[in-house]
Amino acid sequence: MLARRNPQLNAHGELIHLLSIEGLPRAILTQILDTAGTFLSVNDRDVKKVPLLRGKSVFNLFFENSTRTRTTFEIAAKRLSADVINLDIAKSSASKGESLLDTIANLSAMHADMFVVRHSESGAPYLIAKHCAPHVHVVNAGDGRHAHPTQGLLDMYTIRHYKKSFNELTVAIVGDIVHSRVARSDIHALTTLGVPEIRAVGPKTLVPGDLRDMDVRVCHDMKEGVKGADVVIMLRLQNERMSGAMLPSAGEYFKSYGLTEEVLARAKPDAIVMHPGPINRGVEIDSRVADGAHSVILPQVTFGIAVRMAVMSILAGNDA
Amino acid sequence: MLARRNPQLNAHGELIHLLSIEGLPRAILTQILDTAGTFLSVNDRDVKKVPLLRGKSVFNLFFENSTRTRTTFEIAAKRLSADVINLDIAKSSASKGESLLDTIANLSAMHADMFVVRHSESGAPYLIAKHCAPHVHVVNAGDGRHAHPTQGLLDMYTIRHYKKSFNELTVAIVGDIVHSRVARSDIHALTTLGVPEIRAVGPKTLVPGDLRDMDVRVCHDMKEGVKGADVVIMLRLQNERMSGAMLPSAGEYFKSYGLTEEVLARAKPDAIVMHPGPINRGVEIDSRVADGAHSVILPQVTFGIAVRMAVMSILAGNDA
Amino acid sequence: MLARRNPQLNAHGELIHLLSIEGLPRAILTQILDTAGTFLSVNDRDVKKVPLLRGKSVFNLFFENSTRTRTTFEIAAKRLSADVINLDIAKSSASKGESLLDTIANLSAMHADMFVVRHSESGAPYLIAKHCAPHVHVVNAGDGRHAHPTQGLLDMYTIRHYKKSFNELTVAIVGDIVHSRVARSDIHALTTLGVPEIRAVGPKTLVPGDLRDMDVRVCHDMKEGVKGADVVIMLRLQNERMSGAMLPSAGEYFKSYGLTEEVLARAKPDAIVMHPGPINRGVEIDSRVADGAHSVILPQVTFGIAVRMAVMSILAGNDA
Repeated sequence: MLARRNPQLNAHGELIHLLSIEGLPRAILTQILDTAGTFLSVNDRDVKKVPLLRGKSVFNLFFENSTRTRTTFEIAAKRLSADVINLDIAKSSASKGESLLDTIANLSAMHADMFVVRHSESGAPYLIAKHCAPHVHVVNAGDGRHAHPTQGLLDMYTIRHYKKSFNELTVAIVGDIVHSRVARSDIHALTTLGVPEIRAVGPKTLVPGDLRDMDVRVCHDMKEGVKGADVVIMLRLQNERMSGAMLPSAGEYFKSYGLTEEVLARAKPDAIVMHPGPINRGVEIDSRVADGAHSVILPQVTFGIAVRMAVMSILAGNDA
Repeated sequence: MLARRNPQLNAHGELIHLLSIEGLPRAILTQILDTAGTFLSVNDRDVKKVPLLRGKSVFNLFFENSTRTRTTFEIAAKRLSADVINLDIAKSSASKGESLLDTIANLSAMHADMFVVRHSESGAPYLIAKHCAPHVHVVNAGDGRHAHPTQGLLDMYTIRHYKKSFNELTVAIVGDIVHSRVARSDIHALTTLGVPEIRAVGPKTLVPGDLRDMDVRVCHDMKEGVKGADVVIMLRLQNERMSGAMLPSAGEYFKSYGLTEEVLARAKPDAIVMHPGPINRGVEIDSRVADGAHSVILPQVTFGIAVRMAVMSILAGNDA
Repeated sequence: MLARRNPQLNAHGELIHLLSIEGLPRAILTQILDTAGTFLSVNDRDVKKVPLLRGKSVFNLFFENSTRTRTTFEIAAKRLSADVINLDIAKSSASKGESLLDTIANLSAMHADMFVVRHSESGAPYLIAKHCAPHVHVVNAGDGRHAHPTQGLLDMYTIRHYKKSFNELTVAIVGDIVHSRVARSDIHALTTLGVPEIRAVGPKTLVPGDLRDMDVRVCHDMKEGVKGADVVIMLRLQNERMSGAMLPSAGEYFKSYGLTEEVLARAKPDAIVMHPGPINRGVEIDSRVADGAHSVILPQVTFGIAVRMAVMSILAGNDA
């Protein structure tokens, strides 16, 4: 049974936590994307609030600092009329030596309804979901190298918005695949939604051969990787990768794997270019591409709010 | 007259500030506990908001960092529909050399309705209450070693919840009594509510003999101190005490004053174990006790929100 | 046409951004002051909220830390029922190397309605206003040495409140004129509103002769500068000025340019004393003056909330 294998679902197969896209059935992904569509219009309205989470307390538990991601969840929760409590955990109880599970037990006892969790260790949101009170829903806002499911879902929303269906697409994901939770979430989502060709493009240090286990075609040549693609998802190159043994330099990287207009010309004529942000102009992407006609980087941000509203409202409606 | 002796009460003996439990009449403590009871059900509801503080501005003035305490006040205020402004004062005006009273005068001029004050110096909330505009209510969220009245009140709520009445109880408070504002607030509250036996248990460095002035029985032996107790309140052992001349080591302390199942067996069979949190597992309390059947540590947290809602709503209803 | 020369106004001459008082027509200034008057009573009410910005998202973008200014905008926005998102930008994307304009584009894509911007570089709010989405309004909350228009406007509100009209006044601005965005904003506002005599008073290092271009009378003698003034605006002396070559010492400065009762006696008998805060007692102003009968420093703070509510509500009502 699904419910046994996947702690994200209740006995009726409904979503009670969003921890990872891995293992979620296609119907749930589609439900989230469809619901997000109904919220897009809310964000365009003059009064951008709906009362779906009125009186609910959403706790942003950021064990790792990320102002941008926290902001998107904070906006989404406030537009659903929730009360939002931001906890910069790194600075607080953790420094007093309290364990993660004691912190969670305490916050649950305050009648929290939802924890949005960002943590540098893979699996932390699973641990929290396993131990928190049954009335609390957990949303993974990025854990280590493991998953970033709302980013994956907003990427799917973006692709569906521009390409209508998934089942004839070629999607190239370019960059530091091995360290990227975004890449992992995208690959699981694309696979579940039926994308026939997913390519992982980058140098051998960042795109190892064993990714083939994930139903991904590995390409170490950029032009080859982008050729004929409907969707090009560029990943952010973390600075710490550039100064180590992994990569020669930002300039060298750009020469080999940066997305320029010249490279993009190999993709389909109506290809879209995506990026989870913040972008490194001139490192992984050329400004002319980032700001060009194929770029849907800013619409991704807009869709991201709607997708997070969708996830929170679906979770709030389902009991453990 | 009461009003003259106690700056917390107006001429009609009504609560206008909560600065300390010391000097508050039993009727006020009972009013707060009774009101908290009505809010407990609010926290269980689907929509956890009541409009009692709608349009009021509650300022959390934390001159000393305490994410956990700030969070409980923030939640309580938001569930009362107040607007909450968090001010991390340590980082702001104070660093520009502005005096405490100038900061307070400025915030009062912004039409603040309530200041929740945490300060490392004993008496700071009194100073603020004395100098702020008459329409502003002050709640002490912990000042130096002096008082932490809402913690004392939530402890009383917890005791009354499980023990029904106070007048036949034996309450043991264990640990660093001398540096603890929680202990002081508890002792005042327990005395006012008619608890016949209050024990202060710990080593001589942390529980000096002159505590006897506070109507407390001092015990330097743990088993003796816990024997026959209805309520055992464990205090958090601050790390800074452990590395000084005061205590040999955390391990030694635990051997002498840690609460284990074996020690707890000396208390009444239906004894409850309390702790203000965050707990130091294996330092002042054994995990089997903290997570065991006698522990009411998490219910304390839940009651704490209701007690803070009660305090704020009572204050908001009374004029200076 | 005005609209061409001033990015703050739309084609109908209505205010769409508040970047600087410079270049704003008198009618706009008067509209803001009149609107602020209607909000003053709101701040005195029991329920201090009006629904004018309900469902709007106001982002406080503080690239430079200023808890006090951020708080006044946060309160103003919440009293207008807006959702407020505080972004401490210094700590976030900027540190990931994202450009200012990319940050702004991203936040715009989240359907922000208003950016309140504080930045250490003059002109940053202009850059943001120029590049943000057309539905976003920008309020300058202080940029470098350039402008602090809401402070200027609340100063004008204060003067009008106590002096009724502008056209027969003598206003002395005392202190570090050259580095002060408050002074610049005040001078532009006073000029536009028809004040016949504006004096800039201070030492040559802080009040250079070429200020005369701004229609200001420069005085290097304090008694001369204050003589016969209806309004004395004291500026805060930044600590960093005191330790350099610019000034001998705080004590010396106070002797020459501090506002004492003796000096104030040279002004009109009904003169008012203003200060943007936080005040340095004994550096630029004597405590007897700061707390005395002529001081309107705290009413300035109160008026400041109403003025910021006025600016935000006017902006929200006008389309680009």
